[in-house]
Amino acid sequence: MIQKENKKIKLVIIGAGPAGLTASIYASRYAISNIVISKDIGGQASESFKIENFPASAPISGFDWSQKVAEQAKGFGAEIINDNVKSVEKTGDEFKILTEAGREFTSNALLVASGMERRKLKIKGEKELSGKGVAYCATCDGIFFKDKITAVIGGGNSAAVSALYLADIAKKVYLIHRRSNLRAEETWQKKIADNPKIETVFNNSVEEFLGNEKLEKVVLKNEYNGSKELYIDGIFIEIGYVPADGMLEKLNIKKDNRDYIEVASDMSTNIEGIWAAGDITNGSNNFHQIITACSEGAIAANSIHEFLKKG
Amino acid sequence: MIQKENKKIKLVIIGAGPAGLTASIYASRYAISNIVISKDIGGQASESFKIENFPASAPISGFDWSQKVAEQAKGFGAEIINDNVKSVEKTGDEFKILTEAGREFTSNALLVASGMERRKLKIKGEKELSGKGVAYCATCDGIFFKDKITAVIGGGNSAAVSALYLADIAKKVYLIHRRSNLRAEETWQKKIADNPKIETVFNNSVEEFLGNEKLEKVVLKNEYNGSKELYIDGIFIEIGYVPADGMLEKLNIKKDNRDYIEVASDMSTNIEGIWAAGDITNGSNNFHQIITACSEGAIAANSIHEFLKKG
Repeated sequence: MIQKENKKIKLVIIGAGPAGLTASIYASRYAISNIVISKDIGGQASESFKIENFPASAPISGFDWSQKVAEQAKGFGAEIINDNVKSVEKTGDEFKILTEAGREFTSNALLVASGMERRKLKIKGEKELSGKGVAYCATCDGIFFKDKITAVIGGGNSAAVSALYLADIAKKVYLIHRRSNLRAEETWQKKIADNPKIETVFNNSVEEFLGNEKLEKVVLKNEYNGSKELYIDGIFIEIGYVPADGMLEKLNIKKDNRDYIEVASDMSTNIEGIWAAGDITNGSNNFHQIITACSEGAIAANSIHEFLKKG
Repeated sequence: MIQKENKKIKLVIIGAGPAGLTASIYASRYAISNIVISKDIGGQASESFKIENFPASAPISGFDWSQKVAEQAKGFGAEIINDNVKSVEKTGDEFKILTEAGREFTSNALLVASGMERRKLKIKGEKELSGKGVAYCATCDGIFFKDKITAVIGGGNSAAVSALYLADIAKKVYLIHRRSNLRAEETWQKKIADNPKIETVFNNSVEEFLGNEKLEKVVLKNEYNGSKELYIDGIFIEIGYVPADGMLEKLNIKKDNRDYIEVASDMSTNIEGIWAAGDITNGSNNFHQIITACSEGAIAANSIHEFLKKG
């Protein structure tokens, strides 16, 4: 059941990372009523073990940095709603924002600052078994697979590091990669070759996840040890990040050839009333940093202020 | 006498405001040897009574914020040289940077982050009597004119506020403005009209400053009370800010129609090897903030890193 929110809101900000929170600070100071919707305070910044290069507040953990900025934003009047945006519709000059929890907000302007999310394989069983053996972060969830059979999909540094991390916990780690060698740095490649618990499965890929309540096995593209099926308790998909813009599906938002939202110098998108800021954009010369995300958030808020003044 | 510095420096940064200091932090982390030249830590940011909107570190005084970032930059290896850049020359791929104190540095790359400076009148006697009765900041230097005859040149908010501030200290304040009414907000206009110590001199301007050791009188364009001369002990020129790029005189750097340095999205200028960041540029959609200046500094450092890698 959809619960319509009657409060009149000028600006809805999707995402509570550096871009979204800074935009909220600026918007509040322009007296623009705004809410920030995100289940995740700080976004990727909050996962940083130590931020060293942010002016004035570093060194600081990403978690602490994010909490500080969230408190600052709240102090200026921001409401941070612990939910995820599911979809956005535009009707006339108004946006309808529907959340996963079933709340519906309307606003005059929208700022997309939802950042990046783990790249999905988009294969059968992935969604259904996500959190039930299919996972995207070994350092977060690896501990649940103590002495179990695990796998990592990917060939870059993060896949390699995840495999090595899991090898300390699990009984076995398959490292499945579609090419004949890893992209990961030499150091990691050597450590992986030397680790008796890690078994590399090259020139192969996973086509389906199978299991009832939880992951039981995967279906491979090519036979491995005489079978296309491989029994695995926990698998980690480590194939990078993509812009998190699933909620914009119904809108024809313009993206560049790498799937980042195209923004003008004022952070506007091709759709009137929608701005974007942070890692999800092709702004700041594609230099994705906490400081550039904050700056894009501030610029967007300033542009939104101009836009709303015009009525 | 020019003192040549023999140390090989990859990057010289002109200006120690938010842009210059953040650029230095990023450059040092890329292991690019860099020096920051400025007499003024923090630039205009350091004059801010209270910074409220900077993520994570606010509320904080502009002075404290600037000192923190300078310490951070030094911690990563930056050397901040307490001097002003007088001129820059480009010979081949190398820059020669000459300071007011007569030091000469050579570098492969240059970042111009010198921000804004008070707009000058550019009239006779201005330079000679600067600091000797001719000044640009009433709140800084007004106190030296207790019970004296003072004047403010300008018609905006800062001119109005300066006149009111001086009226509390001085015997008399002439507010000289070339138009027939002030641009300042109504509130200020009313306070000025009500203040018996302030005398407005409209449709007039100062053409020359006269005095030996110190300012004695000014020459007006039009007669006022029967004379073109007006006796004044201290005059404050409050006619805004302009990009501080005097040191680039010998280079043909491209500027926009408002005199800001034109930068591409990577903060490069039209001259190879020169980048610009902060208030002096037309970047960040012309939204001049501490956060946008920092971001431009970071982007510039990243671009300079790419440039130097190419050799």
